[in-house]
Amino acid sequence: MAKQNPEKAGLYLDDFQVGQHFRSGSHSVDEEQIRTFAKQFDPQPFHLEAAAGKASFFGGLVAIGWHTAAITMRLLVESGLPIAGGLVGAGGEITWPSPVRPGAVLQVESEILEVRPSRSRPDRGIVTVRSETRDGAGEVVQVLVAKLVVSRRAHPDSLAEKAIKQTNAALKDGAKESYIQPN
Amino acid sequence: MAKQNPEKAGLYLDDFQVGQHFRSGSHSVDEEQIRTFAKQFDPQPFHLEAAAGKASFFGGLVAIGWHTAAITMRLLVESGLPIAGGLVGAGGEITWPSPVRPGAVLQVESEILEVRPSRSRPDRGIVTVRSETRDGAGEVVQVLVAKLVVSRRAHPDSLAEKAIKQTNAALKDGAKESYIQPN
Repeated sequence: MAKQNPEKAGLYLDDFQVGQHFRSGSHSVDEEQIRTFAKQFDPQPFHLEAAAGKASFFGGLVAIGWHTAAITMRLLVESGLPIAGGLVGAGGEITWPSPVRPGAVLQVESEILEVRPSRSRPDRGIVTVRSETRDGAGEVVQVLVAKLVVSRRAHPDSLAEKAIKQTNAALKDGAKESYIQPN
Repeated sequence: MAKQNPEKAGLYLDDFQVGQHFRSGSHSVDEEQIRTFAKQFDPQPFHLEAAAGKASFFGGLVAIGWHTAAITMRLLVESGLPIAGGLVGAGGEITWPSPVRPGAVLQVESEILEVRPSRSRPDRGIVTVRSETRDGAGEVVQVLVAKLVVSRRAHPDSLAEKAIKQTNAALKDGAKESYIQPN
């Protein structure tokens, strides 16, 4: 595991530095996606009907903030922030300075604000990241300052090492749906 | 509009007081919902496979934080926080103290922390709300302190009044999918 290609395996706490920048791929949002998410989680008229959107505060159909957050997560997981063992957030502060409208092409730029090893858990630490999501026309539609739980490199108890090893073992065994015993 | 049943029309800024409590209905989360959301927005193994979840930091399959946020939004919109003209968030702080696992029955309790009329926009203000989402076993799975944009009552420019009036007009006209002109 320790010799794995770092880019493929992702970044560990030790790889992060304050001021580093990361840029994600992009995701195009359309009316259909906005409506589908809204129907499930926020069936208010201004997220479902163009007419009601136009009449509302927003002046048009807009995505729910949590939809923007979820798309941002996808962009970070897939391309924006390659973290070893996966991206796990402990929480954060979120604002939506402008609404996401149909046609927006979302992209995320992240900056590392703080890297803090845990005192009580030597295998991990917290990385604070500021992620700006833009809509393709340059408008910032979301600012998220998140605290992420990140593994330390090559520590025997590293949660990323364990997760990678055990996930691989489980998948190799074809035990896709069954629980495995931890080592 | 002014004579509409306040409970049906929802609450205005003037109806909120610091210390008020609200409780939502409940929503039951199962594996299928967790996987469906994860496939779309966060395809990391510990959200998709029981085995990988077991091997991870979480010790089992868990929902994405943004999924919990979206379910919380649905509970607030439908029952937890009846705001006139709709629930519109400007942002907030979110933490996930415990993970949401299959079988969790989520319910939201909200407390009003601050009510602040806007100085520049006499038709609205900001209500700060602390919403705790619990999992049915008493564990707090999410704490969200959100700033909501809320209309003032009976103000002629009130965005809620406008939204309600224009949405009703648009729906009555059967103009479900077309834009209407603002008054």
